[in-house]
Amino acid sequence: MRILVTNDDGILAPGILALRRALADLGEVTVVAPTTAQSAVGHGITLTDPVRVHRIGLGDGVTGYSVEGRPADCIKLAILELLPERPDLVVSGINLGSNVGINVLYSGTVAAAVEGAFYGIPSLAVSLSDSDTVDFDGAARIARRLIDQLVARNLRRPVLLNVNVPDLSKGPPKGIRIVPQGLKGWREGWERRSDPRGRTYYWMVGDPGREDEGIDSDVAALADRYVTVTPLRFDLTDAGRMSEVEAWGLGL
Amino acid sequence: MRILVTNDDGILAPGILALRRALADLGEVTVVAPTTAQSAVGHGITLTDPVRVHRIGLGDGVTGYSVEGRPADCIKLAILELLPERPDLVVSGINLGSNVGINVLYSGTVAAAVEGAFYGIPSLAVSLSDSDTVDFDGAARIARRLIDQLVARNLRRPVLLNVNVPDLSKGPPKGIRIVPQGLKGWREGWERRSDPRGRTYYWMVGDPGREDEGIDSDVAALADRYVTVTPLRFDLTDAGRMSEVEAWGLGL
Repeated sequence: MRILVTNDDGILAPGILALRRALADLGEVTVVAPTTAQSAVGHGITLTDPVRVHRIGLGDGVTGYSVEGRPADCIKLAILELLPERPDLVVSGINLGSNVGINVLYSGTVAAAVEGAFYGIPSLAVSLSDSDTVDFDGAARIARRLIDQLVARNLRRPVLLNVNVPDLSKGPPKGIRIVPQGLKGWREGWERRSDPRGRTYYWMVGDPGREDEGIDSDVAALADRYVTVTPLRFDLTDAGRMSEVEAWGLGL
Repeated sequence: MRILVTNDDGILAPGILALRRALADLGEVTVVAPTTAQSAVGHGITLTDPVRVHRIGLGDGVTGYSVEGRPADCIKLAILELLPERPDLVVSGINLGSNVGINVLYSGTVAAAVEGAFYGIPSLAVSLSDSDTVDFDGAARIARRLIDQLVARNLRRPVLLNVNVPDLSKGPPKGIRIVPQGLKGWREGWERRSDPRGRTYYWMVGDPGREDEGIDSDVAALADRYVTVTPLRFDLTDAGRMSEVEAWGLGL
């Protein structure tokens, strides 16, 4: 099995190292990942600039390509140019920090998995809640167990899964929950400051917040210390409103 | 009515000028847009860097904020910090180049409208097919007519619409079509080159391609010279596969 591993924290991030090591004996792993951290780039791609690619040895006999671009660029480059054969699986992560709720749309980690799914390849994004003691190896073992079960059951039918692992320093997760993306916004704002020359600048502040109690979502289940699995789609059409908009009879 | 106008081509781009002029007598227009072109940034936000904002007079009595960030940053800044009151409508565009099919996910123009919809504000993204003679004023008139009809019908119920206008240099559009996002990938690849020092770099090449004939999509309808309107959603959950994934009985 050919496995393409990427992330948005950069090819030298500890999360991607833990992930590719956990997958090493499952198949032939190739790492194609951004040279530098690309968090919150969403589904950006590099349309108007050239993209440099550096082939590097990552140890353990693994080939790596360090890409001066976005996570989605990495997938496009890997599939269309760098890999001798189409991968059977794309795994993106392990991201430092969860990607649940509205964050799913901002996440470069998720965007890379979405890009893999465009190409009809089963794809997972894996993220780990941030904490003082981040256990990427533990999260990678969980990812590996999920992937083993996917391989056994379903890998030939493309699926796009967003996986989030709770903070493992507080003990093992309570289990796995299949949950929808939470849809509440962040608790957020901007902190206004002045630079030494008196000019204004802003820092984005805020966090994903919590869903209301009782709501069944990735945000709530992750906070409740479950591993969350959310099947995603890349069709943004709001099919439920097509007929409503049609009925408006819009004219030129 | 308070109207927030943004784009991803930058606050000085001709498309946003045409748009805000077409909306001027509909309400109080404020422009909050990126300082520089941000095409294909997708739904990126600026989490880890400070964001500078410059207040500028745009003429016609319109206040503008030039934001050194992403289109989605502009919406967050406008709503949470810059505007005295919450806008009633967000319009993003007019983008130079269509945003149909898979491009919808890469588009900063669309991401800004999605961000507006997060906040429960009716939001439109407006894009115009690229051509040798780009008629932004014509596209802005079409956007205005659509918005007038929305205001008359529905504006109090939030809606998120992706609007694409065909190349107007070939004559007026055939009409309006309410169509789903096309889901085919690009015709694409990478062009490999060497720099003067012999190092490899890549240019992304390709175009959105065409849907298969007979497919009802934004890609096909725009190519057929219709104005396309697609209601979008920001819930990426693939609800149709939740029960399937549940049935796999994944375990830790």
